[in-house]
Amino acid sequence: MVTSRDVARLAGVSQMTVSRVLQGSNKVAPETRDRVLAAMKEAGYRPHAAARTMRTRRTSTVGVVVADITNPFYPQLLEAVGQALEEAGQRMVLWNAPDAGGSTALSALDEGIVDGLIFTTITEGSEQLGQALRRGDPIVLLHRGLDSLDCDQVTTDNLAGGRAVAEYLVAAGHTRIGFLRGPEQASTARHRERGFRDRLAELGRPLAEDLTAQGAFAHDVAWSAMRDLLSREDPPTAVFCANDLTALGAVDGAVSLGRRVPEDVWVIGYDDIAMASWDSYDITTVRQPIADMARAAVRLLQERLEDRSLPPRKQLFPSELIIRGSTAHTTMP
Amino acid sequence: MVTSRDVARLAGVSQMTVSRVLQGSNKVAPETRDRVLAAMKEAGYRPHAAARTMRTRRTSTVGVVVADITNPFYPQLLEAVGQALEEAGQRMVLWNAPDAGGSTALSALDEGIVDGLIFTTITEGSEQLGQALRRGDPIVLLHRGLDSLDCDQVTTDNLAGGRAVAEYLVAAGHTRIGFLRGPEQASTARHRERGFRDRLAELGRPLAEDLTAQGAFAHDVAWSAMRDLLSREDPPTAVFCANDLTALGAVDGAVSLGRRVPEDVWVIGYDDIAMASWDSYDITTVRQPIADMARAAVRLLQERLEDRSLPPRKQLFPSELIIRGSTAHTTMP
Repeated sequence: MVTSRDVARLAGVSQMTVSRVLQGSNKVAPETRDRVLAAMKEAGYRPHAAARTMRTRRTSTVGVVVADITNPFYPQLLEAVGQALEEAGQRMVLWNAPDAGGSTALSALDEGIVDGLIFTTITEGSEQLGQALRRGDPIVLLHRGLDSLDCDQVTTDNLAGGRAVAEYLVAAGHTRIGFLRGPEQASTARHRERGFRDRLAELGRPLAEDLTAQGAFAHDVAWSAMRDLLSREDPPTAVFCANDLTALGAVDGAVSLGRRVPEDVWVIGYDDIAMASWDSYDITTVRQPIADMARAAVRLLQERLEDRSLPPRKQLFPSELIIRGSTAHTTMP
Repeated sequence: MVTSRDVARLAGVSQMTVSRVLQGSNKVAPETRDRVLAAMKEAGYRPHAAARTMRTRRTSTVGVVVADITNPFYPQLLEAVGQALEEAGQRMVLWNAPDAGGSTALSALDEGIVDGLIFTTITEGSEQLGQALRRGDPIVLLHRGLDSLDCDQVTTDNLAGGRAVAEYLVAAGHTRIGFLRGPEQASTARHRERGFRDRLAELGRPLAEDLTAQGAFAHDVAWSAMRDLLSREDPPTAVFCANDLTALGAVDGAVSLGRRVPEDVWVIGYDDIAMASWDSYDITTVRQPIADMARAAVRLLQERLEDRSLPPRKQLFPSELIIRGSTAHTTMP
């Protein structure tokens, strides 16, 4: 198959110039543009996306890939992304992809059905994704990042968030501290855990492995895990949960055993989804600035649509500990 | 613009035959097929969708349109639709369309980007939707229906659900019965309210207008409305909420005032979303069989993809009252 590299060689220009011509950029001199177009014709270069972009310039549609829409964090994030796109004059189309790799979405980008993609639940880079990024395709990773990939990424400082929770619990005097982990393949889960563990160790209270369990970012798994922890002879007096959905499950697990939060056990979540602040839960959590992150991802995507040669940018938002009723008890349990 | 009607007239066949040729149906005699294809060529008939269908037969992608993904009912419904589609060998792509009319989705159908559409939050028929249905485009309404439209629809018996709640509350001896309405433009809200009101009147306990308020299918609106109702001199002893999200807001509104559910006030929701059964809420509700409805919608869509001449079908699922802790108190408040 003929590639833009072949076209560039034939026209005696850089691949970037070919890319700029495809985008209709006004940074290319008219005679260069004509030479590139002639080379495309000669080489028989006809990518769908390119053909479409040249015809209509843009589809004004951005694809968003998500893995688990039943975790209330994602509908909130998607709503924010949809609003940010609308402000930018674009529409959103969603792929709920269990593989999180979004191969269908990548194909849609390739065929010019969408202008760009935002991945919200990336867990590992696929060969298809790597290829798309090497071509300079407009793709942004939002919420979950990939250290191994050099591309536009918008995340929050999950390490700092985990550390803040460790400091808060130790300062409150807790010694039996529990932890409900998230799935290892999610960067958010890994970073929150590392920050929490490292800071606890630094403060001389290393996490006791027998007080940790898998929460799996799922209400039912967290519910069972919390009941297990609370049924021990010497149960934890505080449990940090790797996200808010896990914390909701942990609170419900405690409630199901007749335990009171925070009187019998403190519970802390992560994300600050709307539900965390609802009166029945009132959960202390670490806030991610969802609307700001969504706007940043959309902005990075716009900029890359304008100029695919921009260097990869990684934008890190601060996290903030929000104290609520699930811990705000004057005395430790 | 040339339509399939023009082609039909020119070829001396019915529009249905033209449609069958476009779908590559084997119900059309070869000579008829040739005559239709010749007529298309002569008339210059070139719809995108038709061209694409003839080339690739199917995209194996179905579009789903939803208006409010932050209501947890919809992520659950979408997850079920995605699974049903996967079992049928198809992929799902989502439009989160605030207008609920899904004009972008209809355009995607027209351009052959998706094989068919499922609308989950329809509120009124647009001219664009009417045209698509008259052409026999594969479109199914799921969850919310439209009485005025003659097309494939999958709903639950919201009238019967509303009636069941009325009977339950009257049988328990409640006389001060409150109601938090849903948005008037949603068929689900209208039917639940009509069933509830009519049955209460039949039982000699007509709904007191001063004990009704708008819940708007939103947690914050329901929260405020519930606080208003409970702050009256003679507050309701039971409140029926037009959906579960409204019931969660009502419970939290009561909790915020220090009222206990069900000791001080009973709360009933509608839908049976996962969260309704979580220990912190434990809400009595009317169950919609989400997975069955999703599978039915996908099946109706498959059948229409095979044969666009099928008459419109309306499938109605039964609803079921699920008693939980938000009402299951031995004595009425």
